[in-house]
Parts: sequence; C-alpha cells; structure tokens
Amino acid sequence: MGLKTFDEYYSRLKKMRRNMYLGGERIDRTDERIAGQLRVIKETYDRAHDPDWENLSTATSHLTGEKINRFTHIHQSTDDLLNKQQMTRLLCHRVGGCIMRCMGIDAMNALSVVTYEMDQLLGTETNQQFLNYLGYWQDHDICANCAQTDTKGDRMKRPHEQADPDLYLRIVESRPDGMVVRGAKIDNTTAPVSDEIIAIPTRFMTERDYEYAVAFAVPADWEGVTMLVRPAYHHKRNHLKAPIAEYGDAESFTIFDDVFVPRERVFLDGKADPRQTPFAGFLALLFAHYHRHSYTGCKPAVSEVLASAAALVSEYSDIEGEDHVRDKLSHLIGTAELVFAAGQMSAYRGERSASGTFMPDEILTNAGRRLAGEEIYNEYKVVADLAGGLCAAMPFEEEFFSEETGELANKYLMRNPTVSSEDQHRCFRGIENMIISEPAGVMQVAGLHGGGSPQMETITMMSRYDLEGLKSIAKYLFGIDRELPKYDRPTVTPRKMLDKFKKRLGIQ
Amino acid sequence: MGLKTFDEYYSRLKKMRRNMYLGGERIDRTDERIAGQLRVIKETYDRAHDPDWENLSTATSHLTGEKINRFTHIHQSTDDLLNKQQMTRLLCHRVGGCIMRCMGIDAMNALSVVTYEMDQLLGTETNQQFLNYLGYWQDHDICANCAQTDTKGDRMKRPHEQADPDLYLRIVESRPDGMVVRGAKIDNTTAPVSDEIIAIPTRFMTERDYEYAVAFAVPADWEGVTMLVRPAYHHKRNHLKAPIAEYGDAESFTIFDDVFVPRERVFLDGKADPRQTPFAGFLALLFAHYHRHSYTGCKPAVSEVLASAAALVSEYSDIEGEDHVRDKLSHLIGTAELVFAAGQMSAYRGERSASGTFMPDEILTNAGRRLAGEEIYNEYKVVADLAGGLCAAMPFEEEFFSEETGELANKYLMRNPTVSSEDQHRCFRGIENMIISEPAGVMQVAGLHGGGSPQMETITMMSRYDLEGLKSIAKYLFGIDRELPKYDRPTVTPRKMLDKFKKRLGIQ
Amino acid sequence: MGLKTFDEYYSRLKKMRRNMYLGGERIDRTDERIAGQLRVIKETYDRAHDPDWENLSTATSHLTGEKINRFTHIHQSTDDLLNKQQMTRLLCHRVGGCIMRCMGIDAMNALSVVTYEMDQLLGTETNQQFLNYLGYWQDHDICANCAQTDTKGDRMKRPHEQADPDLYLRIVESRPDGMVVRGAKIDNTTAPVSDEIIAIPTRFMTERDYEYAVAFAVPADWEGVTMLVRPAYHHKRNHLKAPIAEYGDAESFTIFDDVFVPRERVFLDGKADPRQTPFAGFLALLFAHYHRHSYTGCKPAVSEVLASAAALVSEYSDIEGEDHVRDKLSHLIGTAELVFAAGQMSAYRGERSASGTFMPDEILTNAGRRLAGEEIYNEYKVVADLAGGLCAAMPFEEEFFSEETGELANKYLMRNPTVSSEDQHRCFRGIENMIISEPAGVMQVAGLHGGGSPQMETITMMSRYDLEGLKSIAKYLFGIDRELPKYDRPTVTPRKMLDKFKKRLGIQ
Amino acid sequence: MGLKTFDEYYSRLKKMRRNMYLGGERIDRTDERIAGQLRVIKETYDRAHDPDWENLSTATSHLTGEKINRFTHIHQSTDDLLNKQQMTRLLCHRVGGCIMRCMGIDAMNALSVVTYEMDQLLGTETNQQFLNYLGYWQDHDICANCAQTDTKGDRMKRPHEQADPDLYLRIVESRPDGMVVRGAKIDNTTAPVSDEIIAIPTRFMTERDYEYAVAFAVPADWEGVTMLVRPAYHHKRNHLKAPIAEYGDAESFTIFDDVFVPRERVFLDGKADPRQTPFAGFLALLFAHYHRHSYTGCKPAVSEVLASAAALVSEYSDIEGEDHVRDKLSHLIGTAELVFAAGQMSAYRGERSASGTFMPDEILTNAGRRLAGEEIYNEYKVVADLAGGLCAAMPFEEEFFSEETGELANKYLMRNPTVSSEDQHRCFRGIENMIISEPAGVMQVAGLHGGGSPQMETITMMSRYDLEGLKSIAKYLFGIDRELPKYDRPTVTPRKMLDKFKKRLGIQ
Repeated sequence: MGLKTFDEYYSRLKKMRRNMYLGGERIDRTDERIAGQLRVIKETYDRAHDPDWENLSTATSHLTGEKINRFTHIHQSTDDLLNKQQMTRLLCHRVGGCIMRCMGIDAMNALSVVTYEMDQLLGTETNQQFLNYLGYWQDHDICANCAQTDTKGDRMKRPHEQADPDLYLRIVESRPDGMVVRGAKIDNTTAPVSDEIIAIPTRFMTERDYEYAVAFAVPADWEGVTMLVRPAYHHKRNHLKAPIAEYGDAESFTIFDDVFVPRERVFLDGKADPRQTPFAGFLALLFAHYHRHSYTGCKPAVSEVLASAAALVSEYSDIEGEDHVRDKLSHLIGTAELVFAAGQMSAYRGERSASGTFMPDEILTNAGRRLAGEEIYNEYKVVADLAGGLCAAMPFEEEFFSEETGELANKYLMRNPTVSSEDQHRCFRGIENMIISEPAGVMQVAGLHGGGSPQMETITMMSRYDLEGLKSIAKYLFGIDRELPKYDRPTVTPRKMLDKFKKRLGIQ
Repeated sequence: MGLKTFDEYYSRLKKMRRNMYLGGERIDRTDERIAGQLRVIKETYDRAHDPDWENLSTATSHLTGEKINRFTHIHQSTDDLLNKQQMTRLLCHRVGGCIMRCMGIDAMNALSVVTYEMDQLLGTETNQQFLNYLGYWQDHDICANCAQTDTKGDRMKRPHEQADPDLYLRIVESRPDGMVVRGAKIDNTTAPVSDEIIAIPTRFMTERDYEYAVAFAVPADWEGVTMLVRPAYHHKRNHLKAPIAEYGDAESFTIFDDVFVPRERVFLDGKADPRQTPFAGFLALLFAHYHRHSYTGCKPAVSEVLASAAALVSEYSDIEGEDHVRDKLSHLIGTAELVFAAGQMSAYRGERSASGTFMPDEILTNAGRRLAGEEIYNEYKVVADLAGGLCAAMPFEEEFFSEETGELANKYLMRNPTVSSEDQHRCFRGIENMIISEPAGVMQVAGLHGGGSPQMETITMMSRYDLEGLKSIAKYLFGIDRELPKYDRPTVTPRKMLDKFKKRLGIQ
Repeated sequence: MGLKTFDEYYSRLKKMRRNMYLGGERIDRTDERIAGQLRVIKETYDRAHDPDWENLSTATSHLTGEKINRFTHIHQSTDDLLNKQQMTRLLCHRVGGCIMRCMGIDAMNALSVVTYEMDQLLGTETNQQFLNYLGYWQDHDICANCAQTDTKGDRMKRPHEQADPDLYLRIVESRPDGMVVRGAKIDNTTAPVSDEIIAIPTRFMTERDYEYAVAFAVPADWEGVTMLVRPAYHHKRNHLKAPIAEYGDAESFTIFDDVFVPRERVFLDGKADPRQTPFAGFLALLFAHYHRHSYTGCKPAVSEVLASAAALVSEYSDIEGEDHVRDKLSHLIGTAELVFAAGQMSAYRGERSASGTFMPDEILTNAGRRLAGEEIYNEYKVVADLAGGLCAAMPFEEEFFSEETGELANKYLMRNPTVSSEDQHRCFRGIENMIISEPAGVMQVAGLHGGGSPQMETITMMSRYDLEGLKSIAKYLFGIDRELPKYDRPTVTPRKMLDKFKKRLGIQ
Repeated sequence: MGLKTFDEYYSRLKKMRRNMYLGGERIDRTDERIAGQLRVIKETYDRAHDPDWENLSTATSHLTGEKINRFTHIHQSTDDLLNKQQMTRLLCHRVGGCIMRCMGIDAMNALSVVTYEMDQLLGTETNQQFLNYLGYWQDHDICANCAQTDTKGDRMKRPHEQADPDLYLRIVESRPDGMVVRGAKIDNTTAPVSDEIIAIPTRFMTERDYEYAVAFAVPADWEGVTMLVRPAYHHKRNHLKAPIAEYGDAESFTIFDDVFVPRERVFLDGKADPRQTPFAGFLALLFAHYHRHSYTGCKPAVSEVLASAAALVSEYSDIEGEDHVRDKLSHLIGTAELVFAAGQMSAYRGERSASGTFMPDEILTNAGRRLAGEEIYNEYKVVADLAGGLCAAMPFEEEFFSEETGELANKYLMRNPTVSSEDQHRCFRGIENMIISEPAGVMQVAGLHGGGSPQMETITMMSRYDLEGLKSIAKYLFGIDRELPKYDRPTVTPRKMLDKFKKRLGIQ
C-alpha cells in the first residue's frame, strides 16, 4: 500500500457526493470542464510509478518506512526539500503550468510543526491526532486542497469586527466530539479534484478573534460542504492534440454551512481553548512558508515553459540570433535560475524543527518567490513580444484543415522553410493556449498572488530580517560603534524563526 | 449625406458576399461571434449623431465642406489631430478597449500625403484617384480595415528572396485597367466588419522587390478575397448585463487569391512603374506614424480603463487609502497622462505637408507610443494585484442566481458593507472580463504590438533623431568644439521627416 | 534699467557682508571654491544680452512694460511658460547641469498668486507689498535663493510638537514694523551667490503650527543670517579647459538666528494673523508646482547632456551602430522628450489665475517631473555602461602631458582612429567629470529630490486627481451605473486646483 | 612561513622601484593618496591572524599542507568556494566597499585549470611552472593584480587589425629564455599596492591574433613596467574618524614598454607555439568566471553596506516604520540574498576539474553577478531617497566644530531626539562618503562593469545555456515531439563547460 495509481484515485472521486456546482448545475467529479485539472493531477500519480522518477516522485515514509508518493511526505532533510523542489519543477514542465497538488502537502508539513510546538507549549495532544491523519494520507495517497483564503469582508476590519461575523471561517460551536464551523474559503485551486480539504487560518488572530483560530480536515464531499467551481480550460482541439491544450484549472469557492468536524480531525480550536489562538497566525505563516518554497520549484518551471516557447518561436521565425532576442530569453532564464537557486539554498540552509520536520530558510525563500511574482507579467510580455501579433489573431484550427481554406491557410503560415507548416501551426496554436486564453489569465494571477503576492513576501522578509544586525555595519563604518559585531549573515535560520514566533506568542 | 447611421452601415454589411470562414464554416457578417466587434463600431456611428460629441466625432470635409464622421476625415490642423486623439480616448472609455475604426482613416491620411508627394516627384496622377476614392468614403461613412502585415515567411530574407514568392503580397500582373495581386495579410483587426480593405506595404522595399510595392483598396467581399476570422469574446451574461461583457474583437487572416484591382483603386504599383518602389516604405512608415498617433489616444484610455477598475475594486475592498494602492494607481495614471500629452504635443508641434494634410511630430509620437507598449503588461499586473486572487477564481454568474447556491454565494461576496453584493459581483465579474479572458489576452498583445512594438518605435526614433545635434552638446561641454551651435531641440519636424524620406529615396 | 550684466551683479556680491563659512573659515563671495556656481549664474546674465537668445532669456515686465531678464518675470501666458521651459533647457545644455537661478523666480510666481488670493479672502494687503518687492527685483535683475526645506527634526512630529521648537523656521515675535524669525533652512542651492533669500514654508501647517506660517525675503547678507556653505567642484584642469570642468555647485545650510524682517518684506505671518496659517501649505505647494514645472525644462536637458556624452563616447569607441547602444540612447532620449512634452502641454493646458499670473497644469507637470526623478540614476548607469570602466580609472591630466609618460599614455588611449588622442582624452575626462566626481553625486541627488522626490509628486497627483471621475468609467463598463457622465479628462485644471485649495482652507 | 603580516607585506612595498606616476610626479608606494587602498588590503592580512576568522581567512595549501592566506589558495572543494565567498562578503562589510585582493587569486585559479588542460592537450609543460610560481605566492602571501583589460583601440576590429598593433598587449619577441611584451592594460585595481602583476588576455583570439595569446606574471616594479595611478579617496576627516572615510581606491593604467618576461613566468605564448592561441579565450573566460563568483560575495556586501546606511538614516529620521521605507530596504536586502545564494548554489553545484581545482557553476554565477550589476545604480538611488537631500548639501566637518558656527549647526542637525547630534552628523557624513564622492562614483562603475558588465554575463550565459534542451519543453507541450526527454535542468555543469571549450578549441 502507500503508492496508488491514478485509476485508484479517480475511482474514489467518482464515488463522491455531488456537492459541486458549475454554471447553475450540480456536477460530478467526471464533468468534462474539470478534466484539464484531472489531467494535471494524473501526472503526479503516473510519475510515482515511473522508474526514471523514483527518487523525485517517491519518498520513504518516516512513519512506516514504506515507499510513498512524495506529495504525502513530511520533509526530513535537505535532500527531501531539494527533491520536492526539483519534482515540482519537472512536473510543471510536463503539464505546462501549475502542478496543483503541492497545497495539501505544504499544509501537512506546516501542521506537523505547529501541532508539535503547540503540544509542547500548551500540553495539548494534537500532534498525535495529526500523525494518525497523516498515516491515513500516506496509506491512501491522498490528494488534498488547502483552504486558506477567507472571503475577509472589509479589509480594514479584523474578523470579529466584521458586519457579518461569518466573513472569516469560524467555530460556531465547540464540543467534546468535535466542532461546528461556518464560513467560506475562496481561491481553492485543486479542491474540485481533491479527496480532502484542509482548512487553516488566513492570518494572525488577536485574542478577540479566538473563534477564528480554526484548523481541520474533512473529506471534500463532507456533509455541509458546497463547492462553487470555476474552471478554466482551452478550446477543444480536434486535429492537433497537444499536452498544453489539455491543461486546465479549476478553482473552488467553498462554503462551510454549519459543518460538523469530528474531534480527531480538528487541529486548532480557539473556541474550546483560547490559548490556541496565537497558533492561528503561526500556522498561516508556516503554510505560506512551505508553499512559497514549493513556488521556488514551480515558478522557475513556468518561466522555463514560457522561455521555451519564446525560444522555439524565435527559431521558427528565424530570429534566434538577433541580439534583442537573446537578451530577452536570457532575462527569463536568469530569473528562473535565481528563483530556483533561492529555493535550493533555502534547503541547504534549512534546519530540523523539534518535531523532526525539516524547514527551509525563510528570508531566502521569500526573496526567491517575490522575484518570481514580480516578473510573471513581464515574462508573458516577452513571449508575446517574440511571437508577434499572430498569436492573438490565429484563425481557429478548423480553417487549417477545411477543404475550402486549408491549403492556402497552410501556405501562408510558412516561415523558416526548414519547419513544416504543421509545426508552425502547432507552435502558434500552443502559444495561443499559453498566452491568449482563460488559463493564461489564471496563470498570470496565480503567478502573482499564489502563495502570497510580492507584498506579502516583503512583509514576511521585513518582519523576520535582522535589521539591527544590518545597521551594525553602518554604525561601524560611520564610526558610531567601535566594533563590527561578529556577524554571519543578516538573516534568520528556521530555528530562529520558530523562536521569534514563540516570543511573539508571548511564550518562552 | 456624409454622416450615416449604424443601421445604414449594418444594412450594407448584411448584403455582403459570404467570404468569411470561422470554425470550419462560411459565415455571415451577422454571426453572433463577431457581434462584440460590431458593438464597438456602433459607438463610432452613434456618437457622430450625439450632440454632446459633435466637435469630437464629426468634422468638416475639406473636399466638400460637409459635416462628416471624423473617422473619414483628412486632418487639416492641430485641432483636427487633437480632436481625433480625444475622440479616440473617450470612445475607448465607452467600449472598455480598442475602438478599432482608426486603422482605415490612418491609412487614408498616409495615402493623402504619399500619393501627393509621389505625383510631385514622378509626375504620376495618383493623388486625384485617391481624392475620388476619399469622396466615396466620406459620402458613405465608410468603415475600413488597413491590411498591412504580410505573413513575411523567413524574417531574415527580403520579399523577393523567399522560398515562396507569395509570402509578401505581390502584383502578379499589371495592366492598363488594373492589376492582379496574390498573397495574404494577417492580424487584420476590424476586417470582418469593414466595408473596405485598404492594403499597403509592411516595410521598405529594395529595387528587386518592386513587385511588392503595392497599395490599393477593394470592398471587403471582393472577388478572390477570403477572410479567416478569429473572434475573441466574453462569456454570455444572462443576469448582469454590462458594456464590458459586450466588447469583442475579431481578427482576419485575409487571403488575396489572384485578386483583380481596378486601376482607379490602385495607389501604388511598382510592377507597372518601378520608380514607385521606394514609396512602399514611405507609405508603410507614414501609416505607422498616423496609427501610432492614434495610439496616443487609445492607449491612455486603456490605461485609464484599467486604472478605473483598479480604483473601484480598491474602494470596494476598502483599501483605497493604503499607500501602496495609491502608488500603483498613480503609476497607471501617470503613464496615461504622459502618453496622452505626448500625442497632444505632437499635434501642437505638427506641420502641414505639401498635400495640405497635417502631420504630428514623429519623435514624440513614437516616444509616447513606446512608453504605452512597455507598460501594458505591468498595467494588467496592477489590476490583478489590487483585485486579488478572486478575479481568477470567481464562480460563474449562475451560481449567484441559482436557488440552491445564490444566497450563500452572495452572502460571502460582501466586502465594504456600503457596497451591495450585486455591485461587488459586478465589479469582480467586470474585472474577470478585463483580465481573465481571451479578449484580455488579445488586448495585452495589441497593447504591445499594435501600431508597432516598442522595438519598432525605437528604430523609428533613432533613424529620425538628430544624433549629431545631440552630440554637439557633449563636444561643447568637453571642450572639443568651441561653440554650442544654435540648437532648438534634438528632434525633427514632420517637414524634415518628409525631406529625410525624399533624400532616402534619392530625390531632391 | 532692468537688464543687468554679470559684472554689475558680481560687483554687488563683492560688497556683501562676509556671513558665509566654509571649512572653518569665514569666506567672501569671491572664494574660488564657489566660482563654479558663479560660472553657472553668469550664463543667465550673458544670454540675456545675446541677440540670439532674446525671446528666451528676456521678457517684458507686466509691471512696467520694460525688457527684463526672464528670471525676474511673472508668467502671463502659455508662451511665457513655454519660453521659460525652453530657456531653462538650453541654458542647462550650456553649463552641463543645473542652471540654479530658477528657484527665486519660481518662489516669486507662487507668491504673486498666493498673496493675491489671500488678500481676496482675508482682506489683507500683502499683494501690493509683493508687487513693490517685485519691482525692486526687476529693476536690479536680482538673483535669489528660495529657502524652503526646514531641518524638520523628527519626521513623525508636526512643527509645534518637536522637542526643540526651532527645528522648523518660526516667528518668535511679530510686531507692527516687522517680525523676528528663528530657525534654519537647508539644501539651499544658489544661496551662496544670491542677492536675496526668499523663505517660505515647507509643508501644510495646522492651526497649532501658526507660528510656522511664515514667508519673507531678506538680503542674503542680512543681519543674523549665517550660511554654512557646501561646495562641489571639479579637479582643476591645467591643460584641457572645458565648460564641464568649470561647473560647480554650492549649497547653503542657512541659519536665521533671531533675524528681524521689516514688515514690507513679510509675505506671510501666521503669528500676527492666525487666519493666514492655511496659506502656508498653499504657498509651499504652489512654489513646488512652479519649481517642478521648471524641472520639466532642466531635467530633459540633464538627460540630453548625459545622452550626448553617451552618444559621443559610443562614436569614439566605434560602437555607435550596435543594437544595445541604440536601445540605451533611445531610452534616454525618449525620457527627455516625454518629460519636456509634459511641461509643454502643462503650459498649453495652463490657465490664468485671478492675480493674472499664469499657471501650468498640475497633474501633468507632476507626472513629468516624477518620470525624470525615477530615471536619473538609470541615466548615469547608461553613461557608465557605454563609456566602460576607463572613465573611473583615468590617470590624471598631468600623466598625459608629462615628458616621462605623456607619449605612451596618449598612444594607448587611441580608439576610433579618426579621433585624435586629445579628443579621446577630452571625452573621457569630460565623462569623468560627469559621473565620477562630487558634482556628479550632487546632480544625482538633485535629480532625485530637487523640487520634490518621486514620492512627493505621487502624493500631489493623487491629492488632486479626479479619482471619482476615473471610477465612473469602471462603474459604467461594469453596469453599476447606467451612464458614463460627460467627462473630459480625469485631471484638474489650475483653476480647479485653486478651488480645491480654497475648499481645503475652509473658504469658498 | 606562508601567512605574513601586513607589516611584512608593507615593508616589501616600500622597497619597490618607483615606477608609479600620479599628478605628474613619480611616487612611492607610501604616497598618502593611495593610503586608502592600503587600508583595504590591510584587512586581508589582519583578519588572517584573527582567531575569529580562521576558517574564513585562511586555508590549507594543497601543495604543502601549510596554513596559508585564503587569498593565495587554489579551491579544492565546495567548502573552499563557500568560504571564499563568505570571507569576501564579510571583509567588504569591514571596509565599506570592494576588498580588492580577489583579482590575483581569481587569476591564479584560472591559470591552474588552463595550464593543466593545455598541457594535457598539447603536451606542453606549463602547469608545473605555474605550480612553482604558486609555491612562491603561498610562501610570501603575495598580493597581486590581474591585468586583463587591454586598451583595445577600435572596438570593431580584432587585435591584429588595429591601426597600431600595440593596442592589445602582444609578444614582440619570443625566445628560449623568455619573451618581450609590449602594450598596456587598463582599469587595474589594486595594482598600485600589489607585489605582482599577472597579465592575461582580454578575449578570444583568432589564429591571426597568435601574438596576442599571452599570459605571464612579473613583479609590479619590473623593468619596463610603468603605472599611471588614478586614486579616489575621501576628504580627510579631522574630527569624526570613521572606517568609511579611510576607504580608498587606486587604479592603474599599466604600460609594458618592451618588457622581458623570463620563461619560468610565462604561462601562455602564442608566438612561440601558435597552437596555444585558442587557450587565450579559455583563460580570459575562466578568470572572468572565478572573478564573477567572487562578485557574488562582494556585491551582496555592497548592497548590504548601502542597505545598512539606508536603514540607519531611516531610524535616525524616525521613518523606519513607513511602508515605502520597508519596501525599499526589502528590495536591497532581497537582491543581496539572491545574489549571494546564487554564488553559494554555484559552489554546491560545482565540480572538480581534471587539474583538481574546483569550479563553480557557470550559468548561475553569471545570473547572480548580472542581477547585482543591473541593480547597483538603483541601490544608490534608494540610499539617496531615504537619506534626503541633506546628504548632498552637508556643510563640511569644520562648520560643526568651529566656535562661531558649531553650536547652531549641531542644534539644527537634530532629528530623532534619541540620537545625539554627533551621531546624526556621523550618519550624514558617512552617507556623504558613500554616495557623494569620487570613491562613490568609482564604486558605481565598478559595481556595473567589474568582472564584466551585465551584457557580458548575458553573452556568457547564452553561449553556455542548453537552449535546445529548453526548447524540448515547448516541443513536447505543443505536440511537436512525442516525448519530453529526460532532462535535468537547462544549464551546464562546469565539466560540460570545459568540454564545450575543448570542442570550441577543435580538440576532443
């Protein structure tokens, strides 16, 4: 057991309760409009059975020693982080975009640390519950969504100050056997094809927000859970099949309408125990941290996917040798390399937390993710620049295959004479999918906001960075201080991050 | 006569030959998939009958003294250029994007100058033919496409060097009563809803490319003309009607399969008279010049449309007062102001050509258009940034109106409590149309490439700029030259531009 | 009378009280270390007597109808603003940097408006006093500094909240014959060579800051005024004389140690009449407005000076035709053009205030100035990029003229063989002055902060921009509002700016 | 032996022949104008004797097993590269700029690889000569300059095509006991305080440039070597001593006037053996590679030094909590982190060459160095932005200590009341040194060009990057290729780099 096939996973999905709505109808997990997302998830199961990918796509469970899908693994070492990052990158190359399954395991890693630390500090017993749940995950090769973003109402008000108290997900009742939650989570990528939904807080909570300090997991079709599904997919291809055209996204607007969560699936409950309230922010940020580290894998891949298209169309238009083309490609490549290196070095600089879970460096992870987010729109610009206007004005596929227009359409598509008109067609059609489509729009926004917009990374960096240490350099150079204190580098290790958290939580 | 209504124009379209293909079918001009583009063109007819718009949307024909639609007018003064620019801007506000009808009249203005200059230099009689054609335009309030972009084959080869000689549109036969042309033009916005197609060259032509020195006008359904239509439109709205959702684009891949053009509609014929060959480049660049000046009207409008959405969503999320929000809005606004001002000053610096047609300043027009192109992707980034992830994850319209999910969907959409959930919905739905859609992708590419990509503007600027004049400043300051020559500003007036062209053409 | 020569002006300076300190010594206005700044000011007197410059450098006094130096003129029309802007630009070309004399006249224009408006609203009689003072200015061709920037103490506190109440210049006593002021003003360019110092407030003042609502003019050597002078100048050249090497800056840290100002030189006195307090901010911003408009003249010139050096060194290294060189030059040129056009259009959009003084458009002036400030460091980067490392590693002048090393030094300096080694030397020596020197550092900082840093322009733009008008576009497009209100462009005219001010001042 | 003290080193310098010229005079190595550079070099000797720095500043010779200064060490492992990078960073913090001693050892590492590979391929015996020379280096703790940049004459011509054949350093005669060289090298940082000069080629050489394929080492005062010294230093401080003010740079324009180089100090001689010619480019690029890796240590330090000043002045002005301040600081910090991480990961990805010398990853090293170069001017902008205009207008030190002006000058300097006016003074004085000074100008240019300008890194990256591998992603996604080839990351390892070189050299 442990590793499952795509078919095993898919057969689970097919049995699920029909709690998803799309276009005014209640739909199954087999609805064609979310097939693109399933195609993406399929790669994560298939590669785990591919001998070439063994080191990347599988790992050894620290619970059982069994071989498991890396998407169900709690990182134990630098190598685990490196392999996760590289797996993410290479899978994204294969689907031409976001691999989507990272959210669940990023939440699980965060929970593994936070529940442990909370138990240590408060004497709670949540970590064992978590480990039981993790066992279930690894046994069934679970695909999960992490539902973090609340609808948030008025941005200038805290959760308990909102006109409608449900605008952040909250605990309406806590009792020994579990709790009842109400609210909604949005922007839930992958939720429509997930086995499980893991809900966690979206921000720090003050004492008065204790009802909003909530984390738990439920099956995606659990009683009271309703998903409003927003898909994004490509025009169906009838002639020129291609992986890029099969890519699809689906997002869920997930409503929890007085959902009962059994106690063994509760990981944070500020209503039952208000002392747990500060751990809401800890969990929110630690998930963000793992997720941003995942972005140091996927975002370089997205840059490379865009760069590969830009390079190919430049070859096909025979402009590959032009200076400006090489400059632009090189910029994309450089960004990919720097972001990936930031993630790798975050792994090398990583540390083991008390729970045993391995944590990447925080400043660097955020610096890397931020660069990626700042560049994403520019990367689309470069592809459009090198492809030229035709990518936005390509007649549909049928015009190239119809008897009346096909011959002339293909005749005039020719560029570099060494490239067939079908390949020219495939190239422009692929770029159309990549930059002129709803999935393209979603990828742009996800590239900017996913895992936190550049602004969030700035905030995280500045709240963690050793600014006084930095200033000591100027104080020494300007003669204000006599000595330059022994000083490594002006950043914090993961362990210091945990210490800062604890300090912020008023403990220690 | 002169001004026509939308209905009069549309009734012409309905009578046209069915020479358009879309999705493997031959279609009418009434096909629903191009209705969005018709809705855009409709504004240009409706406003011309709106008393509030009289100064902007109509003009006085310099041929007849009659009141005509400004989209059929040859600019006679600074005010004409200013009014054209402002009309363009305000019309774009009304449709939420490109107004599309500028191409035709930009080509006509270029032809008015080039045919005149050519007649002066070569003793030809093309200008009178052009003026006759212009009379027809003004009488019928013609909507036209300018077909400029050739398919171009191998970018490293000139037209006559291509493996297939048809990869640039060419004259296969020239005879007294007209000529026969073969080739294709791409990226032809507006062509699917145009009365006429004006074809002009895409670049400078060398002596050996004389067959490619070709310009003419034909009705859009002329014998031998076939259009492969590529539409981009929004999801149909069933509940929340809104102008933004009715916007649509349609591009044509236009094939000229041995089309006969009557002599009175021929404006450039290098095959009959190779001396005309150098005027191909003159015409190509002059059209680009007028078209880039139009972009100083539409692009600020696009920036403002994006900025208005960014400002509105910031108000609705109650973050309008945040520093970073004001910084970002201010950047968009500043770009719009600078680009528009560049166009206005180009009008003030403009000059009358020998033909009587008024020409805007070239360096400044190009500098303005280039800034707009460089910023377009960043502008989309700002909207996405301020709107947040939900714009890419909004459930479809029906979920907010269905009995099963509507109430909760609307409940959780609330933000600023002073804004109704329907308005919140309208705002996010509108932003979805604006940035997560096929038309959004097209607008991005058009914002970058339309009228020439930033690189083309750089080339134009540098080929026209008085670099030696500029260097004289350093030579004076560094003591290399004793005097700083009397020196205005290091740019050329339109008249000098014409002189440079003539010099380049080896005349004068 | 009216126009004076440099010698007349300089003889005034020579007679002034020795109230300046530099390097621990009390110095004269003839000190060699401020000769560079005098050389700059000299251009403003010399050009006014140069027939070629008559239209630019002189104007007709609206008080007397006499011919005066434009640096003493109150703008009466669009043409006055255009001529002032162009004069500024061309003078900057001649000195290779800031022309420095604009500050005084910018303050005078602001005072002409504010004193008039204040009189209208409060029934005071300050404008006539101002006009008398202006007459004196025009008669004597006065060179003045505007002392605006207070030392400001703790930036998070208002003037009256500071630990030391003198950290903003304040009125310690107000009496019928005048007032006594105490405090200091910093960053006072030109003050060391000025006849007069005009002091104005640095920001808006609240009711409780009424003692800080102060404006006046005094001779630069007035009793109680002490200047700490900070010069920046180039290495003295012994062999290769060049205008660039004669450029110099001098800044003053000006201390007002209980200075008595006679009533006829007082323009704002919140201590005597607290109703005047709100006019402090009005005056501060209006000076900034005129000064930023001057920057649309000088900053394009600085960009052009840098671009001219970049172009020349590219020619001398024979890389002028390289793509990347043309891209970079074109970027500098484009910025110069856009900023200058913003200033020109601000003049065209200008309006006459009730006082008769002409005012440029505010949004656009700020947008232009801001772009210039954002680009300044990048412009230095481009010069360094194209010049290569040698500009920072050039042996001193003497090495090229000494018997022992001169021959070989010159031999190895050769690049483009058509350029003599002396000209090569002049070019690199000039670039050294331009980018590797104290004046270069000062120019960078002045380019960023002078007239207000980019952030200040953003604040001004956003406080004046018609944001609700802008949002009406989105409201219409999204179907929230049925109509798009008749709408010109989303900016305010100068007159509306004045109305806004009055509204803000609580008057109507 | 091995480790030497600063005094031992300095006593060597004092004995050297007076072959340096400055300001028309022949000078000693004790000239005060180069004292700032000696102060920098002193740190590299002092720290090697500081127990806290043992791991960083010293290493174990792979030749002798003795403890040596890391600046004389050939890298044997990832740890060596990491320690070198971190040493460089921390030393730069201590001097407030470039540490300057890296050049020599970067050249030595490159020679260790190239001489070995050449011997293998050509059967020459250069590597042993090199190792002998290295032994001398390590024994004497040698400080050396690497003279790479030729004067280059006309940039569009190759060395042998120049009007004057000496514009690239060349071998005028080669004989058994050595060779005679003629030419000049420029931009030679550190040369004025170096024991030795190592000359290497500046670019690839074609067959016809065989006389220019030259590398060797000579003592810096060797017969025929003349240095024209260009110093940059700060105003002498009399009151407020500070490390930043003691920093100085000195560059040499080094002339080789028929210099005889003994055979045992010759490392490349294309005149004697034209087969060695292609190794010129190999050596040029490999030195650049090691030097760029050093830049991933020093450039983050420069960013941190600037950021530390920006953070300190923000605290002193009490604006540290403002959003825009944190944004700007965070940008500097993020750049430093990313560039440093790029260098670290280049070490982790490094490989041992056949010679035993360890080599960092090339693509990533270049991507990191390039980012640093692109940002340097912006970093100065941020410091100026946060410091405000006063940094460019500070009265000289004496004004704050004189009896007449000191008290008031200090009174008005106060900002944050918790900071003394002396510390305020020190802070602004330090920033003045940092951004308004000749050394500041030199640091800007060095930050851009040192080790290769951004353009050179782009060229290197693109000539080494696996572009076909990258394109295979698009080919797979677009359906052009069926399979995505097993693919690691689209970059080359150092070993592949060597293979590419050999292939390019036509060997294999």
